[in-house]
Amino acid sequence: MSKLVSRREFLNLLAATGGTAAALKAGAALGLLPGGATAATLDLLNLGASNRKVTILGSGLSGLTVAYELGKYGYDCTILEASHRCGGRIFTVRHGDLIDEIGNRQYCEFDDEPHMYFNAGAARIPSIHRNVLAYCKELGVELEVFINENKTSYVQDDNLLGGKAIRNIDYTTNMRGFMAELLAKSLTIEEMNAPFTVREAETLLGMIRSFGDLGEDDLYRGSFRAGYAAGGFLNHGVQKDMIAFRDLLKSQAGRGLMSANEGDTGPILLQAVGGMDKLIQGFTNHVGDRVKYRARVASVHVRDDGVEVAYDQDGVRHLIKADYCFNCIPTHIMTGIEHNFPADYVTAMKYVRRGTAYKAAFQAKERFWEQEDIYGGITWMNNPSQQIWYPSHGIHKAKGIVLASYDYGDGSYHTKMTQRARIEAHLKDGEKVHPNYRNLLEKPITIAWHRMNHMLGCSARWTRSRGGWTHDEEQMYHHLQSPVNGRHYFIGDQISMHSAWQESAVMSAQWALAHLDRRVRAELA
Amino acid sequence: MSKLVSRREFLNLLAATGGTAAALKAGAALGLLPGGATAATLDLLNLGASNRKVTILGSGLSGLTVAYELGKYGYDCTILEASHRCGGRIFTVRHGDLIDEIGNRQYCEFDDEPHMYFNAGAARIPSIHRNVLAYCKELGVELEVFINENKTSYVQDDNLLGGKAIRNIDYTTNMRGFMAELLAKSLTIEEMNAPFTVREAETLLGMIRSFGDLGEDDLYRGSFRAGYAAGGFLNHGVQKDMIAFRDLLKSQAGRGLMSANEGDTGPILLQAVGGMDKLIQGFTNHVGDRVKYRARVASVHVRDDGVEVAYDQDGVRHLIKADYCFNCIPTHIMTGIEHNFPADYVTAMKYVRRGTAYKAAFQAKERFWEQEDIYGGITWMNNPSQQIWYPSHGIHKAKGIVLASYDYGDGSYHTKMTQRARIEAHLKDGEKVHPNYRNLLEKPITIAWHRMNHMLGCSARWTRSRGGWTHDEEQMYHHLQSPVNGRHYFIGDQISMHSAWQESAVMSAQWALAHLDRRVRAELA
Repeated sequence: MSKLVSRREFLNLLAATGGTAAALKAGAALGLLPGGATAATLDLLNLGASNRKVTILGSGLSGLTVAYELGKYGYDCTILEASHRCGGRIFTVRHGDLIDEIGNRQYCEFDDEPHMYFNAGAARIPSIHRNVLAYCKELGVELEVFINENKTSYVQDDNLLGGKAIRNIDYTTNMRGFMAELLAKSLTIEEMNAPFTVREAETLLGMIRSFGDLGEDDLYRGSFRAGYAAGGFLNHGVQKDMIAFRDLLKSQAGRGLMSANEGDTGPILLQAVGGMDKLIQGFTNHVGDRVKYRARVASVHVRDDGVEVAYDQDGVRHLIKADYCFNCIPTHIMTGIEHNFPADYVTAMKYVRRGTAYKAAFQAKERFWEQEDIYGGITWMNNPSQQIWYPSHGIHKAKGIVLASYDYGDGSYHTKMTQRARIEAHLKDGEKVHPNYRNLLEKPITIAWHRMNHMLGCSARWTRSRGGWTHDEEQMYHHLQSPVNGRHYFIGDQISMHSAWQESAVMSAQWALAHLDRRVRAELA
Repeated sequence: MSKLVSRREFLNLLAATGGTAAALKAGAALGLLPGGATAATLDLLNLGASNRKVTILGSGLSGLTVAYELGKYGYDCTILEASHRCGGRIFTVRHGDLIDEIGNRQYCEFDDEPHMYFNAGAARIPSIHRNVLAYCKELGVELEVFINENKTSYVQDDNLLGGKAIRNIDYTTNMRGFMAELLAKSLTIEEMNAPFTVREAETLLGMIRSFGDLGEDDLYRGSFRAGYAAGGFLNHGVQKDMIAFRDLLKSQAGRGLMSANEGDTGPILLQAVGGMDKLIQGFTNHVGDRVKYRARVASVHVRDDGVEVAYDQDGVRHLIKADYCFNCIPTHIMTGIEHNFPADYVTAMKYVRRGTAYKAAFQAKERFWEQEDIYGGITWMNNPSQQIWYPSHGIHKAKGIVLASYDYGDGSYHTKMTQRARIEAHLKDGEKVHPNYRNLLEKPITIAWHRMNHMLGCSARWTRSRGGWTHDEEQMYHHLQSPVNGRHYFIGDQISMHSAWQESAVMSAQWALAHLDRRVRAELA
């Protein structure tokens, strides 16, 4: 623990803070993204009949973005896709779909209905991700609200109240109350006389009381904010009992709720109606005829006048020569493919790690969560399955698809298990929250992204120290972002400092396109 | 301010709390509504051919609930509705609709499209309101998520940063940070040695740091949680400047954000797809042929064997005699209608006050809020218009309907104005948030519920002291809830302790029906 300063010292520090931040008044940035930024609108050189050839390696979101934009300007694009489908880690699983996890191929047996899908990869679009949203609009992808935080969902932790699942709202209301009580009690008007005025101090105490729903005496005694134990409509509501402060502190999963919806999941989240791959379909409606499926890249050679790519399709070796190449193949896979990239480019390619990520889902025979006042959102568990997601769509329909596990940390726990053992593990974990879970779920699927064919990993990971980017990492990043010989561009969320989001893939493609445009204009000048 | 105890005293109190609350462990209520409660399923006596006659006064949600349920069991219901439409304070305004505010009749000129509607009355169904949700399911009313809290929405207060609108997330992130810093600094392990163990104290400090995004030294220096000032995807994110603590404290509207989504608006909220009156249509699909429109009640007389109601329709006086009467006419209006109710019933009728509530809406020529990363939710303003609501539906369509004012406190401010002055006031208030507001909005409507024909008020208000229900109020409430002579039942949210919600109207009707059922069974026994 760091040294604690006295309250007086601290309040002086605070005053200093107030002083320096006063400059903010004049020009606080309004946006969550850079002030005034809007979605990128590329104004590429219109090539008309000049017929420039482009090869795109991989049909992930970044590759499709390149094909779509260049297609608008008369480029002749070919997309080589190693698998049987477009979209990469945007993968919506429906009835009959193949999950080609290596060593664990599965076909999905969900009922064949529009709302019975599972977004095994990307599932959420934050409202601040303007570039993805702009494509949704441009491509006619219908959007609806995705519920992430839900106060009626549960938190379950064997360390908390003997493992009894409690509602998010019970945890957060009580914790806020106790925190506010501690804070109110620790502040007296006298102690705060500098730098606060008496009026400011009273305002602060009022806000703290309101924040925690404290009594007039600054004591927290439970709150109706957590709902009623009984009554409330035709009779007086009976307040629920408090949960003891020290019990609340026992739960790692519960503590997480106090700061669970920050960063990209803080703003309103949206999803594509009918599955996130509707975005992919939006692109393939325009460039689908440019995709060669089951076309595995064998070699990439950058020449002075272009890029030569060899690929195998249906047992036949093909050679394709293009003016430019955009490559969203994960760099760790690309290192195993023949190429003539320069040594420092290769060093960077090899440096990028890939995250492990694991998800599982079941078809629910009935929407049991709605019987428990839950409409969408996440239940947090302190067990290896970690999360349960209830669907935000298909309200009051007969069935639904439930995410039964999302492990985006060390996905190896379930990966090592057989399919049967994975399923049993999730049922056992979920039963702690929903006692009849096992009987209500059927038709499981599981997906370990770090074992998915042609991907072998989830989002890119550039930094290895907790302290953030090192100078070397910066250098490698910028090296990999720049094209080889002005001809070969790496794209994808691997060429972003904010990986794992669709926005990053789109922005990496837009960056590369803008870079290409400058080069082409310079050439023609 | 109440006397402040020392921190040591307080921590001892806390320990006591922990002790008593330990009993909770064994049986914490899980539900937000009474544990295990589900939507009411009425099992009324099936009357078959016995043809009992029922008169229902008013076609608000409670009246329709009675007609629908009794219709299932063979009762012969007639609904007298004074106005031209069903639904009472469930009122969705669309192209061509009449708003019959007394002295300010308006016809709505919104574009005639399914998503271009305004819920002038009820707009939100909390996921814990099981009885309304059960009817939505039973009647096939399609539901979708309603966004209430949105961190990208604004807070605007002339007292805050010179009136500059800032995002919700900027206010709440900074306020949480400073609160956490204050709290962390006020707690030392040594001071907390009773009743906390060192480990518990460290856990608490860890949670506080996480809650406020503090540095290792427990100082708050701003947070990426509020978004980036620049970069973040292809380059490093630049952190936004902090807003000074004392600036944050200046805003009444901002402080409200720290506890803005509690109680009924805390859980996930839902809305009917296409407008809240789809619920009313769900009922009238079954009982619409039982409604007499523009039928104004002239007298109600309770007799030993039933209830006689006189009403005027098209200039003709009619008399209708029924075995039972269910009445959702607001009691303050009912007191002006001839009746023979007992004196103490009348005392209670006269006691109930009605809230004032005012809403205004405009058609937006374009969905300008989406250009600012806002998808649904509320902007809070410290001016008479108070709130701006952005629609949760119709994402990325060309236009939308924006709520430009919601005053549920003292609605008299705008009510006293001419229609033109109301509109100008909202445009002027909203311009402080969206500079081009005036040019982007058109086709305004306003509605003062306390001046709406046949209603003259919003939700019922039973209590007059801040301390809650007095003994006398309790007595009057239970008196008005009980039927006159077992024949005449008041219903509606006025017969609930939790007015203003659709759930209350439904539950009042279900209570009355269950009461009637007991009586009928007793009669037949």
